Amino acid sequence: MNDVSLILAAAAMFMAGCAANGALRGTGDLGLVIERGAGRITLIETSGRSALGTVEGLGDLSHAAAVYSRDGRYAFVFGRDGGLSKVDMLRMSVDKRVLQAGNSIGGAISSDGRVIAVANYEPGGVQLFDAATLERLADIPSTYGDGSRRSKVVGIADAPGNRFVFSLFEAGEIWIADASEPRTPKLERFPAIGREPYDGFVTPGGRYYIAGLFGEDGLVLVDLWNTVGGAKRILGGYGRGEEKLPVYKMPHLRGWAIAGDVAVFPAIGRHEVLMVNTATWTEIARVPVHGQPVFAIAQPGGRRVWVNFAFPKNDVVQVIDLPSRTVVRELRPGKAVLHMEFTPRGEQVWISARDDDLVTVYDTASFAPLARIAALKPSGIFLTSRAASTGF
Amino acid sequence: MNDVSLILAAAAMFMAGCAANGALRGTGDLGLVIERGAGRITLIETSGRSALGTVEGLGDLSHAAAVYSRDGRYAFVFGRDGGLSKVDMLRMSVDKRVLQAGNSIGGAISSDGRVIAVANYEPGGVQLFDAATLERLADIPSTYGDGSRRSKVVGIADAPGNRFVFSLFEAGEIWIADASEPRTPKLERFPAIGREPYDGFVTPGGRYYIAGLFGEDGLVLVDLWNTVGGAKRILGGYGRGEEKLPVYKMPHLRGWAIAGDVAVFPAIGRHEVLMVNTATWTEIARVPVHGQPVFAIAQPGGRRVWVNFAFPKNDVVQVIDLPSRTVVRELRPGKAVLHMEFTPRGEQVWISARDDDLVTVYDTASFAPLARIAALKPSGIFLTSRAASTGF
Repeated sequence: MNDVSLILAAAAMFMAGCAANGALRGTGDLGLVIERGAGRITLIETSGRSALGTVEGLGDLSHAAAVYSRDGRYAFVFGRDGGLSKVDMLRMSVDKRVLQAGNSIGGAISSDGRVIAVANYEPGGVQLFDAATLERLADIPSTYGDGSRRSKVVGIADAPGNRFVFSLFEAGEIWIADASEPRTPKLERFPAIGREPYDGFVTPGGRYYIAGLFGEDGLVLVDLWNTVGGAKRILGGYGRGEEKLPVYKMPHLRGWAIAGDVAVFPAIGRHEVLMVNTATWTEIARVPVHGQPVFAIAQPGGRRVWVNFAFPKNDVVQVIDLPSRTVVRELRPGKAVLHMEFTPRGEQVWISARDDDLVTVYDTASFAPLARIAALKPSGIFLTSRAASTGF
Repeated sequence: MNDVSLILAAAAMFMAGCAANGALRGTGDLGLVIERGAGRITLIETSGRSALGTVEGLGDLSHAAAVYSRDGRYAFVFGRDGGLSKVDMLRMSVDKRVLQAGNSIGGAISSDGRVIAVANYEPGGVQLFDAATLERLADIPSTYGDGSRRSKVVGIADAPGNRFVFSLFEAGEIWIADASEPRTPKLERFPAIGREPYDGFVTPGGRYYIAGLFGEDGLVLVDLWNTVGGAKRILGGYGRGEEKLPVYKMPHLRGWAIAGDVAVFPAIGRHEVLMVNTATWTEIARVPVHGQPVFAIAQPGGRRVWVNFAFPKNDVVQVIDLPSRTVVRELRPGKAVLHMEFTPRGEQVWISARDDDLVTVYDTASFAPLARIAALKPSGIFLTSRAASTGF
């Protein structure tokens, strides 16, 4: 082997080294689609509206969710099997993975980006992890009553000041964990907030945590600007009501649309969405819709709210115009529409249709389909722009 | 020279090749500091809170501003000399640069990320450029009256639907340019809106454009959800008033703090900030402050508004607590504080002190200084998270 061939060999070796480092690109327009049927995610980009590749080996991704590192490079994927996977969006590979519990329902990232919190059903509680290493920093068991039992934890969301807010289903409590010192989180508890809180979310801007109740009508609100005020009941008429209608799928509270001082909530069991004044938390109006609403999501920068529906009417998306309080458009993105994700400035929406193995990208101005991307039983869609938002 | 040293030489060569391609990293935590004294920017990152390097050759950067490509990789820097520079944040170099006019005051990027708009004093008007190539797509001369004169263009902001909204100083008009077809933009004009609009901004969420008037008291509001309603006058009492107090520096409207349904405006000439109800656009209260306020900016996710001041009281920043309407903290970041930029989730604020050649990063929870970064006469600070926001 002569000198030249040696140099060429070295050249090839190091060029390969460069390639293995992944392509040089911005991360602000990246995202992922959960492929629940494959334990896999498809990485996407919203500038050319294309799929970039897949990452395998993420375990059980039924009802999975994801949050992003503050630099937008890493996704933290919460699997139903308790798996927490850190995915490198640039190298398109699993950077780290831990099995942190038996059954997990979701998680959040602290406002400083240093701590990942995972909410668990089994064993019930919240675990805190270092976002860089996935080292476990703290375990917060959701014990209640005489301390012998643990409650399922639901509706976890991040709040300003490195706080995580979540609800205890069996206990009927809301807890706030301040993770500023993540090895010794400080807990604030709100007991007896109502029967069976089943989900919760933080409003845009990070001021309020709102939990929905499965065991009774009404909602629970905690003002995160002033927690000494405790938990308040709002919208007593919100829920399944006296008739106890069959509910095919409980609405996702996380999607609740808040546009200015109006919030749009999916009614439970009824073919309606509720318009609510967020200054007084009282009902303004109800808008009739196609079926039992699941998500009602405000189009960023827009005057519209997009709504999808529960089985058997889950092949339709309706678009509501807020000022006129009417449905102005109906789309059919495919069978079993599970999720809708807007680009941060609202010009596109990505919609997953599970039973057609299809993700469709729509232009929100013209409603024209801009791209169709194949995915195996797609559910949640998560864009890196979530890294800059509170409450995800 | 033996084989091993040859291989090492080749190795070094190709490693250098990798480095020249820029480091593989996410762009979500990047930003830049305008160094107005040097025609240069310093690139920063907010995870380790450090300076990454500088980019030279950007011309006259006095009163310069920047927006970002939707992927967060490229900054578009608007220089006072009419220079429009596209900076690669990863390679830390000027990707493209054009001298597009004689005197420019700022610009914006369309909601789809494809069009850059630059607002010019001389010759007055707005020019549209392709964000990928910086090719000029359209020229919108700000002619008024008998058509022989052009007005200075101020207060340009992007609005949903690829619209740009701006004000014509001498003409006393507000124009909306729809750049969905950027070579043939559609114009909507609002004449006789008031004397000498000097700045304007779009409210968070993208619903309203508000312009301030230099020639008379009061503000002008356009509802972008319903422009047929025309331009409305609000807050007639806002301005220099009868006394015509000396104004050392007109407030920057772009910084106006809007938290929930309360907006906090810097008073003009007076040592006060105004609290305004954004549902009715009426005054709620006035909070006395240290000097003539310039910026009043809401801390993301927080209950606080940070305020800086005009000469000679411009070495102080005050922090106002919204619920109690009181100043809860006073900081002294250095001489001639020009700008404050929050990380998108509000845990840090970056503050430039021009006459101390210093940028200081504060922890917004503890008010502790986290880092100090040297910069030559620093003014504006712009983070890539702006790419995901409407109205910047």
